Amino acid sequence: MSEFGQLRFDSPRTGTLPSGPRDAISDVGSVTVGHCTLADGAIQTGVSSILPHADDPFLHKVPAGVAVLNGFGKSVGLLQVKELGVLETPIALTNTFSVGRVAQEQIRVAVAAHPSIGRSWPTCNPLVFECNDGHLNDIQALAVDGNHYRRCLADARADFAQGSVGAGRGMSCFQLKGGIGSASRQAGDAMVGALVLANFGRLPQLQVGGVPVGAKLAQRADTCPGARDQGSIIIILATDAALDARQLRRLATRCGAGLARTGSTWGHGSGDIALAFSTAYTLPADPRARMPTVAMLHETCLDPLFDAAVEATEQAIVHALWAARGVTGRNGHSRPAVAELLPQWRALLAFPSAS
Amino acid sequence: MSEFGQLRFDSPRTGTLPSGPRDAISDVGSVTVGHCTLADGAIQTGVSSILPHADDPFLHKVPAGVAVLNGFGKSVGLLQVKELGVLETPIALTNTFSVGRVAQEQIRVAVAAHPSIGRSWPTCNPLVFECNDGHLNDIQALAVDGNHYRRCLADARADFAQGSVGAGRGMSCFQLKGGIGSASRQAGDAMVGALVLANFGRLPQLQVGGVPVGAKLAQRADTCPGARDQGSIIIILATDAALDARQLRRLATRCGAGLARTGSTWGHGSGDIALAFSTAYTLPADPRARMPTVAMLHETCLDPLFDAAVEATEQAIVHALWAARGVTGRNGHSRPAVAELLPQWRALLAFPSAS
Amino acid sequence: MSEFGQLRFDSPRTGTLPSGPRDAISDVGSVTVGHCTLADGAIQTGVSSILPHADDPFLHKVPAGVAVLNGFGKSVGLLQVKELGVLETPIALTNTFSVGRVAQEQIRVAVAAHPSIGRSWPTCNPLVFECNDGHLNDIQALAVDGNHYRRCLADARADFAQGSVGAGRGMSCFQLKGGIGSASRQAGDAMVGALVLANFGRLPQLQVGGVPVGAKLAQRADTCPGARDQGSIIIILATDAALDARQLRRLATRCGAGLARTGSTWGHGSGDIALAFSTAYTLPADPRARMPTVAMLHETCLDPLFDAAVEATEQAIVHALWAARGVTGRNGHSRPAVAELLPQWRALLAFPSAS
Amino acid sequence: MSEFGQLRFDSPRTGTLPSGPRDAISDVGSVTVGHCTLADGAIQTGVSSILPHADDPFLHKVPAGVAVLNGFGKSVGLLQVKELGVLETPIALTNTFSVGRVAQEQIRVAVAAHPSIGRSWPTCNPLVFECNDGHLNDIQALAVDGNHYRRCLADARADFAQGSVGAGRGMSCFQLKGGIGSASRQAGDAMVGALVLANFGRLPQLQVGGVPVGAKLAQRADTCPGARDQGSIIIILATDAALDARQLRRLATRCGAGLARTGSTWGHGSGDIALAFSTAYTLPADPRARMPTVAMLHETCLDPLFDAAVEATEQAIVHALWAARGVTGRNGHSRPAVAELLPQWRALLAFPSAS
Repeated sequence: MSEFGQLRFDSPRTGTLPSGPRDAISDVGSVTVGHCTLADGAIQTGVSSILPHADDPFLHKVPAGVAVLNGFGKSVGLLQVKELGVLETPIALTNTFSVGRVAQEQIRVAVAAHPSIGRSWPTCNPLVFECNDGHLNDIQALAVDGNHYRRCLADARADFAQGSVGAGRGMSCFQLKGGIGSASRQAGDAMVGALVLANFGRLPQLQVGGVPVGAKLAQRADTCPGARDQGSIIIILATDAALDARQLRRLATRCGAGLARTGSTWGHGSGDIALAFSTAYTLPADPRARMPTVAMLHETCLDPLFDAAVEATEQAIVHALWAARGVTGRNGHSRPAVAELLPQWRALLAFPSAS
Repeated sequence: MSEFGQLRFDSPRTGTLPSGPRDAISDVGSVTVGHCTLADGAIQTGVSSILPHADDPFLHKVPAGVAVLNGFGKSVGLLQVKELGVLETPIALTNTFSVGRVAQEQIRVAVAAHPSIGRSWPTCNPLVFECNDGHLNDIQALAVDGNHYRRCLADARADFAQGSVGAGRGMSCFQLKGGIGSASRQAGDAMVGALVLANFGRLPQLQVGGVPVGAKLAQRADTCPGARDQGSIIIILATDAALDARQLRRLATRCGAGLARTGSTWGHGSGDIALAFSTAYTLPADPRARMPTVAMLHETCLDPLFDAAVEATEQAIVHALWAARGVTGRNGHSRPAVAELLPQWRALLAFPSAS
Repeated sequence: MSEFGQLRFDSPRTGTLPSGPRDAISDVGSVTVGHCTLADGAIQTGVSSILPHADDPFLHKVPAGVAVLNGFGKSVGLLQVKELGVLETPIALTNTFSVGRVAQEQIRVAVAAHPSIGRSWPTCNPLVFECNDGHLNDIQALAVDGNHYRRCLADARADFAQGSVGAGRGMSCFQLKGGIGSASRQAGDAMVGALVLANFGRLPQLQVGGVPVGAKLAQRADTCPGARDQGSIIIILATDAALDARQLRRLATRCGAGLARTGSTWGHGSGDIALAFSTAYTLPADPRARMPTVAMLHETCLDPLFDAAVEATEQAIVHALWAARGVTGRNGHSRPAVAELLPQWRALLAFPSAS
Repeated sequence: MSEFGQLRFDSPRTGTLPSGPRDAISDVGSVTVGHCTLADGAIQTGVSSILPHADDPFLHKVPAGVAVLNGFGKSVGLLQVKELGVLETPIALTNTFSVGRVAQEQIRVAVAAHPSIGRSWPTCNPLVFECNDGHLNDIQALAVDGNHYRRCLADARADFAQGSVGAGRGMSCFQLKGGIGSASRQAGDAMVGALVLANFGRLPQLQVGGVPVGAKLAQRADTCPGARDQGSIIIILATDAALDARQLRRLATRCGAGLARTGSTWGHGSGDIALAFSTAYTLPADPRARMPTVAMLHETCLDPLFDAAVEATEQAIVHALWAARGVTGRNGHSRPAVAELLPQWRALLAFPSAS
């Protein structure tokens, strides 16, 4: 049980494809997710991590591809993922100013396991994504340290919490409380899962399952205060289909369409970045080890996976909104949770049926 | 008057921003569009061109940026636009197998105007976009020749036809008749216009203004026969804002969000490509000429243009569908027009209000 | 025997790695090369083709990656190669203004073999590279037609001519006669071959094996007339190592280092483009066919191949220069061949030893 | 005077263009460079910074472009530079494992100057480049902290030290002592300066001014011990020409040719990254401020700058080698300096004349 517990939430169901049993990224292979949440007065932030598999990712590298929808962002590690097509650490999520510290702890963890790293072995490539939670969180306090990263690693599990937890603690989405959301969709024999760190959007843009919820709510002055958008979204996709790095980049690109379905226009100041990885095989660090002999998916069979990536992304954002609890933080700033507003919204809106 | 005439169509209005007076790309600067349509039995195809300004584009090059949403396509000229950030010919649209011939005619036109091209002057860069109209058109007949390109240039005007005209003659969209569509949106002081060559999508995906029209129609066996998606979409954006090539690439990228709003997941086999140009200034071919001294738009002021690009793209696709007339072509294949189906649809569907 | 015959040439040998038996791209797998040369007065041009294997490339697609060193170029087909990571036609080389016609003939050839292309099957992606031979050739005459492409296909062989043949007929390099050159280098168990269409450079830049030949020659007014650089170079790499598209892009990138070794600074107006393909496996067009299960080369084993790519590129350029015969063409323009100048150069220069 | 003093070194002069008065990056505008060097037993490392101008770079952003020659690297900040085309902090250089800490200190410095950063203002984008100095330096000790970054900022000057100083303290190049090098070249009216952090290459590859120095030295067992290449190079270019971000990317790309001239083949494990910035104008952070109205350089006038970028890069690497002093560090590992080896080399080699 994660520290903030598995939230119960009845969110609208979007799209048409079937979900996996958890409707979460952990429906893919043995993917797990952990959180470390800091919630104390002006400090409302945290770290989350996604473990693609249970083994050592430096020894058993994970094929991955990246799509930068809008590069206004400070995530680290993408340069090398693009060149080499692999991950070699867990995927970490945190706030913008904590990237450096979490990256350094990723190095410490890798070096502790493999003292030859940076000496007779190559260095390891930290992979840390970020959004700016400075509205609710005192981001200048630099409250996240290395132990928080280790704690979120230790918390990794298949049944993980969503909403205002981990890196999602201080995030806002459509001027509501955002944060961590996850979903999965079946694509023929393959599963595609998404996990988002959702921190983007202005309320009037919000669409849920095609319904312009935000435009209707924004007409009511009492539903939410106006504010400028300075958000971002990180979208992590996992699939158990055998795809190479190029195909995974194509898959990650489709997250943009899922994001657009929620009403986003990929704002100038929003670092919108997607990364997709496959759990179907790994690449050995050791050049003497046998390289995998995997038949990749035929290119013309990608369409169902593309559809699933779009739907999983859209649903994961909806889950982030519906799972979140309201948070009050720095300077008394607060973001209301959809869950709290729903009773008053229901009079105004007809949502797609709950999942 | 274009050969097929300005269609009257009452399409749904999508989005919230105000349109320009024509709700078309020709609301931007002095942009004009021309068509040459071939409609004879199995030959249902054509050429369209967009002229960014009334001057010679080789002498007065047009700043431009490109976003390749899905590179399954055979368009030519993008390599150089990406490197140099300018157009130097009109933008041509045609079917996939006619790209070579139209490109060659673009060279002939440029050389006729400037006999030094390819000798003491550099060569010129043809810019031809394509979609595959092989369902309705006998694309293997290679019916388009250089004269058709010249005729569409001569046809250029601000009040141009949309739908089953020019390059749009044989195109299909969501298994309905697609083709040429255009729209414009005001973004503060700036205007953003879009023109699409729409040839993508499966009916069950179609969303209009967020309403899942296609899913409802696809439940009715009589509305449209099933078929695989092998489409593409070309999206051309124009703006009168002063943007450099990098900013124009950012603007073009947002077309992906507009496309996603219609239900597309950017299918594997769909060459989805966007190009944005600015009419605010030109770059001289002559190195001795004075370079323009233009204050570019401040980066943080791009958001309204991004919103406008998304809305204009979505609306242009809707216009392509609503403007199209049904076409029967090769092997008796036909695509029904929305305009024909609407009476029977209206019983099933509630659309957003007409524009 | 190609129409202009296998030239005998004793060029300097550059680099340190061993060559394959032919010191040509045809040392890799079953790669063959064909030429069709047009040499008549002001018409000094042609078409060349590289066949990655003896089978139908549309059915058995060839893994490939692209590096655009400088995108001032009009080559076609790269958009799709980048997205899908495969070739599906022979690689064609010709002059800048003939790209469209050769591309159209590639379509005709593919459609003739597979009448379903563009109908029930996807369209095929022409792949045509170009340089501007307008100094020697009347490029505006558009002398190349489809038959020339078919003739160069029919001419394909392992022992092919180099120098002023095929697409290289009218090309200039370092203000000398350039054209087609090829070389190969052994990289452990793997072979890397290069074929260039060399049409770049100013004489004072020329370096051969590190020796600043051009600077010395340019001091002598009688060696070569001054002229501005408006060239380009196309570099095609083949390897029998099992690399995926991402790795092939990395390999192709190294051609830039080989090009730099000859003195090039990748000039603004020079379309410098490299494409690398692997002959180790193919990808089936048919989605029901079995996908290959190939162990790719471990990433850390790429360095010898990178060295080989650099050396093969440098050597191929040197071969192009040494193999070329002098050509006089349009307006009496001529380019002298290194082979003709060598006797007078030998007094001035000490070259690396002949290969 | 920098802590290790301005080294006197008589290096070979490469290339043909004239240098600026300092033959260093500080010949461009008011660019300054500072170092903080850590040299104590197993700790042989440091931080260096490049200040594009004397003003606050967050308020007056600097136009910049990036070329990733080989993305095996952990530098941070490039994602946003590519998207927005500007720098907003000094450029920092350090060892691979210190990137996180230096990035965090860049944030601290920016926040101290502008307490609204990350709150009502956007966050700031740290820009830290790295090479792995783990052969000489105990990189796992994570010895660099925030104060070292501040000290190198305070040390910024036009007459800065080169060689085994700052971030260059523990770097190796061609198995010799490498580190910081700088050079400048005049390109017509414009100046182009380069600063490198040189940590790449195997001795047998080394070429100086085209002379295969390394191959000759490597034949002598006593000149240098064999070792695997795990290096990298960071190349920073400055120019006072008015170029936009796209043109600066083109300029940065040419560093690859300069690097190749020294014998590098851009090895798999070498993070070879170039960034170019212009001092001709700045972009205001404040959207209400007047945007600059600068006539950019005509594209066809870039060639002299490209030549200068190539030559300045090559010369800066040579300067790094010749300026370096021998260092002994972790586990008694040492790298000999060229300056120490030269007397014994002179018997073997003929170098280009000293600059």
